[in-house]
Amino acid sequence: LVSAHRMKRPWTGQVEKPPEECVPRYDPYNPLCPGNTRANGEKNPEYKSTFVFENDFPAIQPDSPDPASGQHPLFQSKAATGVCKVMCFHPWSDVTLPLMKKEEVVTVIDKWAELMEELGATYPWVQIFENKGAMMGCSNPHPHCQVWASSFLPNEPTLSDRCQKAFYEKYQEPLLLQYAKQEVAKKERVVVMNPHWLAVVPYWATWPYQLLLLPRRHVLRINELTTEERESLADIMKRLLTKYDNLFNVSFPYSMGWHGAPTGPYLKEDNSHWQLHAHYYPPLLRSATVKKFMVGYEMLAMEQRDLTPEQAAEKLRNLPDEHYKSRHG
Amino acid sequence: LVSAHRMKRPWTGQVEKPPEECVPRYDPYNPLCPGNTRANGEKNPEYKSTFVFENDFPAIQPDSPDPASGQHPLFQSKAATGVCKVMCFHPWSDVTLPLMKKEEVVTVIDKWAELMEELGATYPWVQIFENKGAMMGCSNPHPHCQVWASSFLPNEPTLSDRCQKAFYEKYQEPLLLQYAKQEVAKKERVVVMNPHWLAVVPYWATWPYQLLLLPRRHVLRINELTTEERESLADIMKRLLTKYDNLFNVSFPYSMGWHGAPTGPYLKEDNSHWQLHAHYYPPLLRSATVKKFMVGYEMLAMEQRDLTPEQAAEKLRNLPDEHYKSRHG
Ligand SMILES: O=P(O)(O)O[C@H]1O[C@H](CO)[C@@H](O)[C@H](O)[C@H]1O
Ligand SMILES: O=P(O)(O)O[C@H]1O[C@H](CO)[C@@H](O)[C@H](O)[C@H]1O
Repeated sequence: LVSAHRMKRPWTGQVEKPPEECVPRYDPYNPLCPGNTRANGEKNPEYKSTFVFENDFPAIQPDSPDPASGQHPLFQSKAATGVCKVMCFHPWSDVTLPLMKKEEVVTVIDKWAELMEELGATYPWVQIFENKGAMMGCSNPHPHCQVWASSFLPNEPTLSDRCQKAFYEKYQEPLLLQYAKQEVAKKERVVVMNPHWLAVVPYWATWPYQLLLLPRRHVLRINELTTEERESLADIMKRLLTKYDNLFNVSFPYSMGWHGAPTGPYLKEDNSHWQLHAHYYPPLLRSATVKKFMVGYEMLAMEQRDLTPEQAAEKLRNLPDEHYKSRHG
Repeated sequence: LVSAHRMKRPWTGQVEKPPEECVPRYDPYNPLCPGNTRANGEKNPEYKSTFVFENDFPAIQPDSPDPASGQHPLFQSKAATGVCKVMCFHPWSDVTLPLMKKEEVVTVIDKWAELMEELGATYPWVQIFENKGAMMGCSNPHPHCQVWASSFLPNEPTLSDRCQKAFYEKYQEPLLLQYAKQEVAKKERVVVMNPHWLAVVPYWATWPYQLLLLPRRHVLRINELTTEERESLADIMKRLLTKYDNLFNVSFPYSMGWHGAPTGPYLKEDNSHWQLHAHYYPPLLRSATVKKFMVGYEMLAMEQRDLTPEQAAEKLRNLPDEHYKSRHG
């Protein structure tokens, strides 16, 4: 539901605290910094690039008990097992992906691919996701993401699988590749593009500045990307995240994550209907401190946006490619 | 996805501003107060109970232009028309539903029924919803709700219709009536109950203290409630909202809304599979200032909760029925 005129409404509601702009490079009390001790008593190595460890408070564990579901059709439950990992992007707390060197971003991508390969060998779904900013429930400013691998296909990928499969069966072409071709031709929702990648505010965007990032060739999973495509991905990620930060001159909060063909037992099946892609869901709407509230009508009826995807894409597209911090720094 | 052990994790993330506890009964600058002038220059009457008016910044309008959808299957859109109304619950800004007299709550219910009858005569869906608290994007402390009537069935009711219909076709019984019977027998998720109504933390709850409120007899729409059932609803609403406020000794934020059988053209169809119900979605998890963040994994994979529905129900059930404000007031 798009109500382009709603931005005219004055805002007198909740205003968020702007993100912390002065994060120290090293904080002796931050459990994610190199050399520091975490909640479980383990000491981090003096890592120099990325660093992966098991989440000290995992939502999914390898040894979860079976809830012994009843027989009633309305009360069905199953054991959910898996692992939760945390991955630091960089030894420094005061950098973010758009401010990191391109080679450093490539290292992050390589690590994502490695974890997908390793955990995907057995688990059907490996969710790589980044919660950035306190507004997105992220409790630590150190640049990091999480990787939750599960014994089941969660709801969102199940739905995504179903829709991509239905389209493929009807049109003998992956839905997202057809979609990418259309967007490249139409241009109006394109934010950044390079020979291998495309980032658009999707036609179906619900969050004000939501982005869909996807390769322009048919790729099922992140670990299938070539060296060239990884470098190209680092380039487009730096560009789109720089635009995000430049929108309100603030370290832009968001949740992002990768969706690709399922793994584990699904590795043996035909997944040609799948196309690798990342979703970016940023909450800000009006300024660095006023977000879109996905509440009442959105929760109970359907999502409603206050500006069109084309307006959002144009705004992002026209922002400088140089980061506001480096411009005056 | 339920991870009952996750509440053990320490919280060092974002802390919300606690809700304003000292709201003046009358504020000359509040556009919702009796006698005040709103953004569009209209003057509110000196209303004494409820007061309904057209939203000055409506998301859906009666005369929305047709977006002229293309022919491509991936780019489909349609005109969305409708009306958005605002309904004040009470002339005073310093009361909330649990603090209002029972008769005053009955007046609110009667008005809901009246609007459903009136707008439902032509519109297929009439969404009555309340966003309460700044945390839920509500920009005005005056007790009020919204009513958005639309020319289409939104996503959530479409899904709800489909699931209730599938169950009804299979078991010849409304899904939610069978569900209510099971919950009354099991007791473990029941929070409050009276002869006509039941409130449970549903088996499928995603928000920590989510509630489902429904009549115990088969009722399709809110305007079909008898006088006795409306009084009984006022009673249970006051009780459950008092428990909400007593949980963290704070005016509990939430989004709530009513779902019943669709209206307009659907009035001519058989809707026996439907059962009227209200959803309460409150964001708080740990305290008056620490909410549950539905972010990364929740947005990209599936919703994850940090305590079981049974733990939440027990906590709410054991709270006093007397409001913390009246106890020491
Ligand atoms: O119309 P309001 O109360 O100003 O706006 C609030 O409720 C709407 C309906 O749930 C949401 O779309 C807005 O994001 C929210 O701020
Ligand atoms: O694991 P974290 O970063 O502490 O927790 C954060 O991300 C999780 C996964 O999206 C959410 O369930 C939590 O609500 C959020 O605070």
